[in-house]
Amino acid sequence: MDNRPIGVFDSGLGGLTSVRELARLLPGEDLLYFGDTARTPYGSRSRDTIIRYGREDVELLLARGVKAILCACNTVSSTLPADYTAGLPVPFVGVVDASAAAAVRATKNGRIGVIATAATVKSGSYTRALDALDGSLAVTAKACPLFVPVIENGYVGREEPIVTALAREYLAPLKEAGVDTLILGCTHYPLIAEAIADEMGPGVTLIDSGAQGALALRGALEGAGLLRARRSGGEVQFYVSDSGENFAEVGSLFLGKDLAGAVHPFTLAAP
Amino acid sequence: MDNRPIGVFDSGLGGLTSVRELARLLPGEDLLYFGDTARTPYGSRSRDTIIRYGREDVELLLARGVKAILCACNTVSSTLPADYTAGLPVPFVGVVDASAAAAVRATKNGRIGVIATAATVKSGSYTRALDALDGSLAVTAKACPLFVPVIENGYVGREEPIVTALAREYLAPLKEAGVDTLILGCTHYPLIAEAIADEMGPGVTLIDSGAQGALALRGALEGAGLLRARRSGGEVQFYVSDSGENFAEVGSLFLGKDLAGAVHPFTLAAP
Repeated sequence: MDNRPIGVFDSGLGGLTSVRELARLLPGEDLLYFGDTARTPYGSRSRDTIIRYGREDVELLLARGVKAILCACNTVSSTLPADYTAGLPVPFVGVVDASAAAAVRATKNGRIGVIATAATVKSGSYTRALDALDGSLAVTAKACPLFVPVIENGYVGREEPIVTALAREYLAPLKEAGVDTLILGCTHYPLIAEAIADEMGPGVTLIDSGAQGALALRGALEGAGLLRARRSGGEVQFYVSDSGENFAEVGSLFLGKDLAGAVHPFTLAAP
Repeated sequence: MDNRPIGVFDSGLGGLTSVRELARLLPGEDLLYFGDTARTPYGSRSRDTIIRYGREDVELLLARGVKAILCACNTVSSTLPADYTAGLPVPFVGVVDASAAAAVRATKNGRIGVIATAATVKSGSYTRALDALDGSLAVTAKACPLFVPVIENGYVGREEPIVTALAREYLAPLKEAGVDTLILGCTHYPLIAEAIADEMGPGVTLIDSGAQGALALRGALEGAGLLRARRSGGEVQFYVSDSGENFAEVGSLFLGKDLAGAVHPFTLAAP
C-alpha cells in the first residue's frame, strides 16, 4: 500500500485520455500530470531530442515523489531506451507495449494497423512490440502528422471536412492491407475515433492507446502492491511548461470538465 | 563597411522565405540563420514563453558575432518588448513593422487584412503598427493556426483540398470586410500564396512579410553604413536546435535548393 501520487506525462495534452481512464479505473488515487506544452509536439522531432525531453519529463515527476510513471506519449514510449526505463526507481509503464498486447488479443485475421506520429512510426516500436508477441502478424504502420494539430484546433467532429479528408488519405493503406484491428498509436486520436471508424468501416476494432496504458498501469500497481488504501475522490494536479490557460481550455476537450483551478504553469529549465 | 555576417532567426523554417529574399537583395553578405526546430512552433504558445524563447534566439546570434539581426518570425516580432530590441548592441529589424509599412503603401481603399498565427493576432501587433502609420485604416486580423503544420507537411499545392478548405474557412471574414491588401503575417504563408490569392480573388495585393523584412533590413544596413564590401558568393550557414535532417528536407521546399551541407544541429541550453 502506497499513498503517493501516480505520475503521468505527455508531450502536451494527449495524455489526458489516459488520465480520464485512470480516474475511472482508480478513483481513489492521486494523479500528478505533466504536459510539456512549451515544447509540444514531440512527434515531428528527432530521436535525440525526444530522448532528452523524455528524460527531463521523467526526472521532473520523480522529483515530485511519484510512486509509478505512466508515459502517456506514444512518441516517448517508442523512443526512450529500455535500459533507461528499466533502471528507474519506480515502475514505468509505456503505452506502446500495453496497446500492442491489446491488439494481439483483439485481432482475428492477424492483420494489425498502427496510426501514429512520424517519430513513433519511424522508431518501428509497434512493429517490434507486435513481432515479439506473435511473429506471424502482418503489421501496417502509417504516420498521420496532421491529426494532432487538427485535433488541438478543435476539429474533431465526425463529419468535419478537414478530418474526413485527412482520414481518407491517411487510412487508405490500412484499408488496402485488410487490417481488422487498428491501434490509435497517439493519445490524441481517440477524439476523432468516430471519423476514423467511419472511414475504416465496420468490423475493424480500434485500440485506444491511452486507455490501454491506464489498464496496464493498474496491473503494474496491483502486482507491486502499490495501490493506495481504498477511497474515492483522488485529486488530479496538472503541471505544464507553458501557460496554463491554453491547457485548461483545450484540456476540457479531452476530459470533458473544467480544469482551470488545478493547472500549475512553471518554467522548465533544460539542462 | 562591416564584413561580419547578418543574423536571421525564426522559430523554425518559415524565416527561410526571408533568407531567400536577402540572398537575392544582398548576394555578397554572409548570413547566419538560426531555426529553433526543437521548440517550434511558437505561434500557439503564451506570451511569456515566446519572450523567453525569442531572447534566447537573439542572444545566440549575438554570441556568434552578427552585425545586425532580422527577426523573421512574426510571432516573436509581435511579442518581444520594444525596449529590449531597442537596447540591443546591433540593429534589429522585425518583420511586422516592415510589412505594415508595405501594406499602407499598397492599399487604395484603406481596408487591410492580416492573417497570422494565434499569438501574432492575439498580440495586436499588426493593428497597432498599422494604426500608428494611419489612424483611418480598417484592419481585420484572422488567426490561421493550421496553415503552418499543413505547409510543413508539404501540402502547398494550389488545388490541394486541405489547403483550399482551410483557406475558404480562414479567409471568409477578410473577404467579407472587403480588404484590398492582405498581409501574410507568417513567413510560412508565401508557400501557399497561390491558393490564398485564388480564394481572395483578383484585385487583392498580398504582402509577403519575409520579403518585406529582408527589404527593411537592407535599408537599415545601408543607413548605418554596415554593408560589406561588394562581392558575390556570400555564404549562408544554418543552425538548428533539433536534428538537421528534417530541416534540410523541408527547408528545400522554402529555398528551392539542397541545404544538406550547410546545416549545423546543436543543443540549445535553456537558462
